[in-house]
Formats: sequence, C-alpha cells, structure tokens
Amino acid sequence: MNTFDESDINNMAQRYRANFVNSLSGYKSANLIGTASAQGQTNLTIVSSVVHIGAHPPLMGMIMRPHTVRRDSLENIKATGVYTVNAVPVELYAQAHQTSARYDESASEFTQCGFNEYWRAGFAAPFVAQSPLQVGLELAETIDLTVNNTVLVIGRIKQVSVDKTRIDQDGGIDINALDLACISGLDTYHEANAIAKMAYAKPDNPPKLIKHYKP
Amino acid sequence: MNTFDESDINNMAQRYRANFVNSLSGYKSANLIGTASAQGQTNLTIVSSVVHIGAHPPLMGMIMRPHTVRRDSLENIKATGVYTVNAVPVELYAQAHQTSARYDESASEFTQCGFNEYWRAGFAAPFVAQSPLQVGLELAETIDLTVNNTVLVIGRIKQVSVDKTRIDQDGGIDINALDLACISGLDTYHEANAIAKMAYAKPDNPPKLIKHYKP
Repeated sequence: MNTFDESDINNMAQRYRANFVNSLSGYKSANLIGTASAQGQTNLTIVSSVVHIGAHPPLMGMIMRPHTVRRDSLENIKATGVYTVNAVPVELYAQAHQTSARYDESASEFTQCGFNEYWRAGFAAPFVAQSPLQVGLELAETIDLTVNNTVLVIGRIKQVSVDKTRIDQDGGIDINALDLACISGLDTYHEANAIAKMAYAKPDNPPKLIKHYKP
Repeated sequence: MNTFDESDINNMAQRYRANFVNSLSGYKSANLIGTASAQGQTNLTIVSSVVHIGAHPPLMGMIMRPHTVRRDSLENIKATGVYTVNAVPVELYAQAHQTSARYDESASEFTQCGFNEYWRAGFAAPFVAQSPLQVGLELAETIDLTVNNTVLVIGRIKQVSVDKTRIDQDGGIDINALDLACISGLDTYHEANAIAKMAYAKPDNPPKLIKHYKP
C-alpha cells in the first residue's frame, strides 16, 4: 500500500487529481437529472452525486458544480422549482455519459443523446421514459458550500415511478433487478450483482442474512 | 410502471417507507468511518452516504443522522477534528454491516466486528487495516440541514492509502480491481463489474470507449 499526503495530491496535474479524488468515494449511482426552463426547453445531465437525505419527509440531495457542470440544470431547477432523478439502466450507460458533453443551451440532451421525454400531468419537469426508476422532486433548499463554491440541492420527493413487482415486502426496491448502472470516478461504468440482504444488526447477535442472492 | 405520490409515501408504515426511500438513490458506496474519542476510545460505523464534493481542494462529504445513527462518530469527529473513510471489501460486507448495531459506548466496533485498527503517525483517527482504500480527513465544516436535522460533514482529504499499481495512468483508481462492496437501500450488499471507461464527452462526437472491461 502506498500513502499519498495532501501535498502529493495538491501537486498532481489538474486532470489527474480530478480523476484520483473522484475515485475515492467508490461506487456511485448513475442518475439523469431532467429539467425544463420556464420556456419549456428541456435539459438532461448525468450526475453521480445523488445522496439519501431522509425518509420522513422523503428527501434526496445532490451536489452540483456551477462552474464545471453546465449551469442550465440548476437554473432550471430554481426557475421551475422541480426536477426529476432517473436511474440509468446498464444498457444505456454510453448515451447517459454523453449527456455530460457541453451542448448548446438551445439543444436538448434528450434528443441529442437518444432519450425520450415522459411528462406526467401536473409536473413541470420531464422524466426519462427509458428509466425503470423515476423520481419527481420539488426543490426544498439549495445550500451554497462556501468551501469550494459547489451547491447542495435538496429536493422533496413528490412522486416515484417503479414497477411495483420490484418492491420487496419490506418496502425496499430490488435495485439489482432493475439492472442499473453505477459509476466510479468520472467515467467508468459498472453493473452490479446482489450478494445478500442483511437483517437489522444487533450487538448480541452475529451478522444474519435475510436473503442470499449469489448461487 | 406504478406511480406513488407524496401521500402514498407518507402513508407507508415507518420502516417500509425508510426502506423504500433509502432505495431511491440506487447503488451507494460502502464505507467504514473510523474515529477515536479524545480519550482514545475507538469507533467504527458503516455509512452509505459518502459523496464527492471537490478535487481542488480535495474534499469529501457524508450525511450523518444524529438521531438514528449512534452519535459517537460525529462527537468524535468534532472532538478530534479528524476521521477516516475506509472502503469495504466485498468479502467483509457482513461484518461491515454489523458495525451498524448499537454497541455500548464503551465497546469498539473494531474489536466487536473483527476489524483491525491501523494507526499512521501524526493522525489521530484509526484506519481499517483490511481496507484497500483508506482516506484520512480533517473536518472542514459541518452543515446542519434544518430540513430534517441531519448533518452534512465535509472533510478535507489529508492522506490516501491505496496500492499504487491500482492507479490508472490518468489518475483514476481502478475501483473494480479493489473488489469493493456497494449498497442499496439500508441492508443489501452487491459486488460490481466494470463495463467500460468512457472518453470525455463532446457534443460533436458519439460516445467513445477508452477501455472495454467486459469479455
């Protein structure tokens, strides 16, 4: 094992350091954020920073980089107050990655990258029709992280669309059965296989499996 | 596909809703947070909320739940100013999950769950010896999320330990080669397989693979 200290990291070339530090958080979910401007221009961008904030009220967060990621998404979210989070199916990872290209503001990544908009009545942001797990959110709060000028966007979950046969008896969604992609670093895509579902851990009991997936 | 609106979600039983909403963020990294109290009592807890904040300066974040997760970790971080983030190897998922049990404050999850402390000179928090990717952080900021009384803990990366042969030429770490676990929901563990590493996306070019992992 090799140890890299702060000065080693600061001395890395910019792109090398970006790849290195982005790898440190391991596997990350691949999600497409769907928005529309007040004029109806749609926008779609891949993010790997979606994080669970809480279940009651149901909240999700994500980190946005106004200076590196195109600003349209965040501007649209602020303008309309709503956005969608759509899980990326494994087979569409390449076109999902393509939404990170800097298209003109007048182009929609939906059409440019081959995703279909799906609109639900009463909700002013487009979902990704090809996604098996679609979440519609209302902006709850944006928190400026002054430490590096990024923004934590917190949304209240207004609706979730998923095939109900994929929901386990305990309410958990069988993510593995949805064939979703995950990301490491900035650009590497993975598929995952479930190993086990664990029982609630208790100090006096050894780890206990509820379900074993691997053959 | 079935759609669940806000009232459907709010009407779910508490545990069912927790499982459901925790599933919506898809695959999440599995990390063990190592801390010590000012008196040297160590603590280890699994989290699935680690998120990349930025590369320059190098920063990582995580969401902590003072009211549901045991408070020791956050108290230790505030008391000593440092903590470690240790990626969970696939083969240790069950004992990593076990660190979520509510052990007495006087017990260390390192010994209770079978992890070995590794101390590095000049750093006041324990690493997990069995982890192939160990990050030492200094607390940069805690941000109280008033929307649900959770806390965003932001740390500045002080050191990273990883086998240097696992670092690609572009600085990215080959996460797949480290055999790390990922989590969905609160309790389901997965292994992942890399599919492809993608080139930086450009509007005028189709998606381009840099490396194809699948046979």
